[in-house]
Amino acid sequence: MSAKSKLPLLILILSVAALFAGLAFAKQDPELKQCSHQCRVQQQFDEKQKQECARKCEEYHQDKKSREWEEDKKQTKEYEEEEKHNPYVFEDRHFSTAIKTGKGRVDILTKFTENSDLLRAIENYRLALLVADPRAFIVPNHFDANAVFVVTQGRGRITLIHEDKRQSFNIETGDIIRIRAGTPLYLINRDDNEKLFIVKLLQPVNRPDYYDVFYGAGGAKPKSFFETFSTEILEAVLKTSRDKLESFFEKQGKDAFLEASKEQIEAMSRREEGTGGGGMWPFGAESKNPFNLFRKRRPSKFNKYGQLFEVDADEFKQLKDFDLRVSYANISRGSMTAPFYNSRAIKISIVVQGQGYIEMVAPQASRKSGYEKIRSRLRPDTVFVVPAGHPFVTVASRRTNLEILCFEVNIANNVRYLLAGEGNFVQQFEKEAKELAFKSREEVVNRIFGNQDEEFFFPVPRQQRSRDYE
Amino acid sequence: MSAKSKLPLLILILSVAALFAGLAFAKQDPELKQCSHQCRVQQQFDEKQKQECARKCEEYHQDKKSREWEEDKKQTKEYEEEEKHNPYVFEDRHFSTAIKTGKGRVDILTKFTENSDLLRAIENYRLALLVADPRAFIVPNHFDANAVFVVTQGRGRITLIHEDKRQSFNIETGDIIRIRAGTPLYLINRDDNEKLFIVKLLQPVNRPDYYDVFYGAGGAKPKSFFETFSTEILEAVLKTSRDKLESFFEKQGKDAFLEASKEQIEAMSRREEGTGGGGMWPFGAESKNPFNLFRKRRPSKFNKYGQLFEVDADEFKQLKDFDLRVSYANISRGSMTAPFYNSRAIKISIVVQGQGYIEMVAPQASRKSGYEKIRSRLRPDTVFVVPAGHPFVTVASRRTNLEILCFEVNIANNVRYLLAGEGNFVQQFEKEAKELAFKSREEVVNRIFGNQDEEFFFPVPRQQRSRDYE
Amino acid sequence: MSAKSKLPLLILILSVAALFAGLAFAKQDPELKQCSHQCRVQQQFDEKQKQECARKCEEYHQDKKSREWEEDKKQTKEYEEEEKHNPYVFEDRHFSTAIKTGKGRVDILTKFTENSDLLRAIENYRLALLVADPRAFIVPNHFDANAVFVVTQGRGRITLIHEDKRQSFNIETGDIIRIRAGTPLYLINRDDNEKLFIVKLLQPVNRPDYYDVFYGAGGAKPKSFFETFSTEILEAVLKTSRDKLESFFEKQGKDAFLEASKEQIEAMSRREEGTGGGGMWPFGAESKNPFNLFRKRRPSKFNKYGQLFEVDADEFKQLKDFDLRVSYANISRGSMTAPFYNSRAIKISIVVQGQGYIEMVAPQASRKSGYEKIRSRLRPDTVFVVPAGHPFVTVASRRTNLEILCFEVNIANNVRYLLAGEGNFVQQFEKEAKELAFKSREEVVNRIFGNQDEEFFFPVPRQQRSRDYE
Repeated sequence: MSAKSKLPLLILILSVAALFAGLAFAKQDPELKQCSHQCRVQQQFDEKQKQECARKCEEYHQDKKSREWEEDKKQTKEYEEEEKHNPYVFEDRHFSTAIKTGKGRVDILTKFTENSDLLRAIENYRLALLVADPRAFIVPNHFDANAVFVVTQGRGRITLIHEDKRQSFNIETGDIIRIRAGTPLYLINRDDNEKLFIVKLLQPVNRPDYYDVFYGAGGAKPKSFFETFSTEILEAVLKTSRDKLESFFEKQGKDAFLEASKEQIEAMSRREEGTGGGGMWPFGAESKNPFNLFRKRRPSKFNKYGQLFEVDADEFKQLKDFDLRVSYANISRGSMTAPFYNSRAIKISIVVQGQGYIEMVAPQASRKSGYEKIRSRLRPDTVFVVPAGHPFVTVASRRTNLEILCFEVNIANNVRYLLAGEGNFVQQFEKEAKELAFKSREEVVNRIFGNQDEEFFFPVPRQQRSRDYE
Repeated sequence: MSAKSKLPLLILILSVAALFAGLAFAKQDPELKQCSHQCRVQQQFDEKQKQECARKCEEYHQDKKSREWEEDKKQTKEYEEEEKHNPYVFEDRHFSTAIKTGKGRVDILTKFTENSDLLRAIENYRLALLVADPRAFIVPNHFDANAVFVVTQGRGRITLIHEDKRQSFNIETGDIIRIRAGTPLYLINRDDNEKLFIVKLLQPVNRPDYYDVFYGAGGAKPKSFFETFSTEILEAVLKTSRDKLESFFEKQGKDAFLEASKEQIEAMSRREEGTGGGGMWPFGAESKNPFNLFRKRRPSKFNKYGQLFEVDADEFKQLKDFDLRVSYANISRGSMTAPFYNSRAIKISIVVQGQGYIEMVAPQASRKSGYEKIRSRLRPDTVFVVPAGHPFVTVASRRTNLEILCFEVNIANNVRYLLAGEGNFVQQFEKEAKELAFKSREEVVNRIFGNQDEEFFFPVPRQQRSRDYE
Repeated sequence: MSAKSKLPLLILILSVAALFAGLAFAKQDPELKQCSHQCRVQQQFDEKQKQECARKCEEYHQDKKSREWEEDKKQTKEYEEEEKHNPYVFEDRHFSTAIKTGKGRVDILTKFTENSDLLRAIENYRLALLVADPRAFIVPNHFDANAVFVVTQGRGRITLIHEDKRQSFNIETGDIIRIRAGTPLYLINRDDNEKLFIVKLLQPVNRPDYYDVFYGAGGAKPKSFFETFSTEILEAVLKTSRDKLESFFEKQGKDAFLEASKEQIEAMSRREEGTGGGGMWPFGAESKNPFNLFRKRRPSKFNKYGQLFEVDADEFKQLKDFDLRVSYANISRGSMTAPFYNSRAIKISIVVQGQGYIEMVAPQASRKSGYEKIRSRLRPDTVFVVPAGHPFVTVASRRTNLEILCFEVNIANNVRYLLAGEGNFVQQFEKEAKELAFKSREEVVNRIFGNQDEEFFFPVPRQQRSRDYE
């Protein structure tokens, strides 16, 4: 048997050894050890062949190390580049699954400061997405965070339990509702066919950047918190025997998302008028009701290139605690927003529909040598953050409208400074300032900043579109 | 001389060596070195005995190392387990002595976040305990923290120095007083026999989690801050010669706690009506006076199983800056509180009297797999924290009432959700939600959550008490 | 050729090698390597000489290492000592240059917490100094921080761009103006001869401790943010062709500070009445105008030893967001301030003119053993911070008045406690407290604290002045 003819055996040895790779500890390489061991114990190998085999183990091992090293280096580099350019943009891989059941799921975005401290001003906010299948019932729960829920699609029903009353609301696309920390709630998707999508902005109360969900009743995965108490405690507080308690809690559903029957949904949905609307429970007016972003009389900005819907605490008191404006931009295909910056608000945006890209001006990491252009593709569920003072534009692709839901925090005293188009801020400079700043005669400056006469939404001439993001 | 007969000498050698153990540096073992050296230089030993001696040194040393290692391992493990289970509970060993004199002491609880970041929401609060002997005078001082003082036992007198006036109050068990940062104050225990106990909640103003006490007048350990200034500065600002200053400051007491004479105490105590009560100093009403928790008309919750006294900023304006509720629960022997959670308030509790235990539901560290039960024995001075949203119960032992003082921070908009007994939150679920959540007919759910008809305080049937914490 | 006669060559070898020192990597010493290599390749060296040469390389290298090590050790020690004594004082070396042009500069003070966490309460504030040459124009810019500007010298003009209006103010020594984050502004020094000095206190909005400046129009270093956008974006939003844009932006000035002509300055300065004063733009009263610290009726404290000018939000609403008092102390030569402490305000001070020193009482780092005296020389641009509760005095030199600008943050509910002179807090102690605290008869205490009858500013008798700081 020549060394050559034993190649398959060697390959086998190498691959068996590879199985051990996963068990590797820091300081030893069990794979190499295993491979060398296999060489030694092969009875069909003579001594020379054993040595040859061991040598090949070494070689293979060296090769593998250097391949891994190269890969690591490459990945690290790519990662660093990405980090460098996009601490502002979060994609699928930045979400983690909080709950996933047969009837729906909740995904939570990583902390905004996970990749860099540039977003420290919003480190105490978290973003989560809920998707509930048709007729899903989300069992009663509460969480240690204040929250704003926005329905981006579907028809649901939410019930909040207050100190001495219950409130239920039918909710639909565009509805916004504030949920105070700790409020027990349950939720249904009352549609037979359509999924229910809710975007949540959360502000944890116990720890600045984490929150937990407590399933109070029902829900077995995670278990209801009732069942976490000692049995003797439950017996005492519910005045019920151990046997009865066990059989009672055993029955509970296995998931946080259950399926409700058509009849149950109908019964609950019908009841709505009596509770939320101001009948059965005497609320101080309708201020606790959800606010619908699209049922305002008209968008705050609109032309044929797009529409902007907005609401803040002036119109919807519940947003006051959050110092928040919620907005929804629908940018027509082949159009864009005006470049602008918020004077002090920080914009947390999530793409609901469509494709496009964002371009933002950000100070360079070195802080010495001017600005860099942050540019990133936008797809559904892409989250991007625009810090205060940072000029940016959002551009829809030529093929689809781009729909974006925005939470603008620190909105008190915020001013939106438009940098081009109708109402741009250069128009307010004095003659001398224009001439000094731009080293051009006033008429020239006025012409440059006066050509664009649309406001807020502009068309993107076909030939000017960047190819990379189409 | 046989090796055996030299055992006492060997023991002596070993024990002399042990003295060096405390000097051990990381990389050498001076104890072993010393022991071996002693063996070598004993003139009554022959060579063999010397070797035997050296061997015993080695053995002793090996044994000792392995014992220490085992102990370390055990201690580390215990410590870790404790940490894991009890970042919420603080005992004697978590207090450190700030001042200890012949007439009293002040102990400060470690930072709440010392062991884990689960309590980050209260990292800017500190807790301290003051005990003053009968007739103790605590010299004038101020501290860079806002504080709430609660007298848990005794009869004292506190004097606050304001910008242009002085306020003095006789204080007694149950009195609460807010002290603004930097306010100079002095304090006496005006009782001849009983100690004075004060629990302090503090919010530092210079650094989020530390505060310092500045002894202004009197007090030599630490020195008065007057004496820290250069002599030439003191001469200039007090217009007094160096000699006079030296003899003046030399006389000051050696401690922060001094003994006042009966006459001095009487003179000061008598003066009270004229200052705090609204005579000599024209205050805007009595709003600066302490508030007594027990002199309210009646407890907010009570039955034969316990009493709960509470006050918040609505009734006692001074608590507003702290966003605080102070409460005092007296749980009868063999009774317990209802399981409940606070929607957004975080509860900092300290046991004043009695024995018992707490059981709390907390999310597991992994955050994925449900909750764990936190259970801890309660004894006088045990401090425990219940974060917002966390359900818990407190149980008194069968032999003693359990008395607990609580500071509930973030109290604005807080709701206390009762999980069992009269007024429990499940009663507010809709029929369908009850049935879906618990997979039982509504009547069954109602029965389980309707058996207990007491409110807030429940009896603990004798046979159901857990044995471990009695 | 003797080894000796080859010394110059050896020196050359050593010095060539030294050139490589800067390239040193962590684990190798290229200098030694290079030196040894040079020895080996010298053709005029015989073998022995080569060895001698290599040995000298080694020696030189060892020497150098040990010198460097000594120096490191020394520097570290000095640094540590400095840190230990002066986390409260910042000098020239703590400023870094943000912008430096032919027409002016901006310097930014390091973070207050750079050297220690003792100043964590003000870690979210930054301090900056602007100096503009006569007739300098500072191009339009905005920054992601709220700011208070104080003019410490000169005559300028500032223009703020608001959402739909422009405001211009002529400013001069003593003027204070609040600038909201993100507000575009431009600035001129309207004097032909005198420089314009502005001290800025900033509160970043995106990250707690950094802020960035965005040059909007004009300014090429850093580039205008307009130019950072992709050309195709600029073409679309300004509806202007690439060629025209390029020639337009090319013309812009190279600096953030440009020179304005006399005519431009006159035109802009004249326009002032029409804008800020309440003509052209209908403002709700004059509340947006700057406030002049020296044009108040009279200083809040004054005698022949000094003057104190102060303003807070009661008088100047713009300071409310900052919870701030601005003050300016002019201490006469050979005089000092009374020792006092602020109950909760933290004082950030910068010396504008003159020489002197500060002496402050601070708790010792160990927190156990009393206080230490912090003493530091004051010169123009020295910044010092006095935390809440810390007693201190400021002393002017015998040769010059000492002028200090102070920002006192956390001013709400602050009380200034005077420790000596008219109104000192000891006078308010009860008789018994005085006697207990100071172990002296009341008359003696009263005499010590009653000798000084000046208020707030005191003379420093000549013989009592400390020599070290004169």
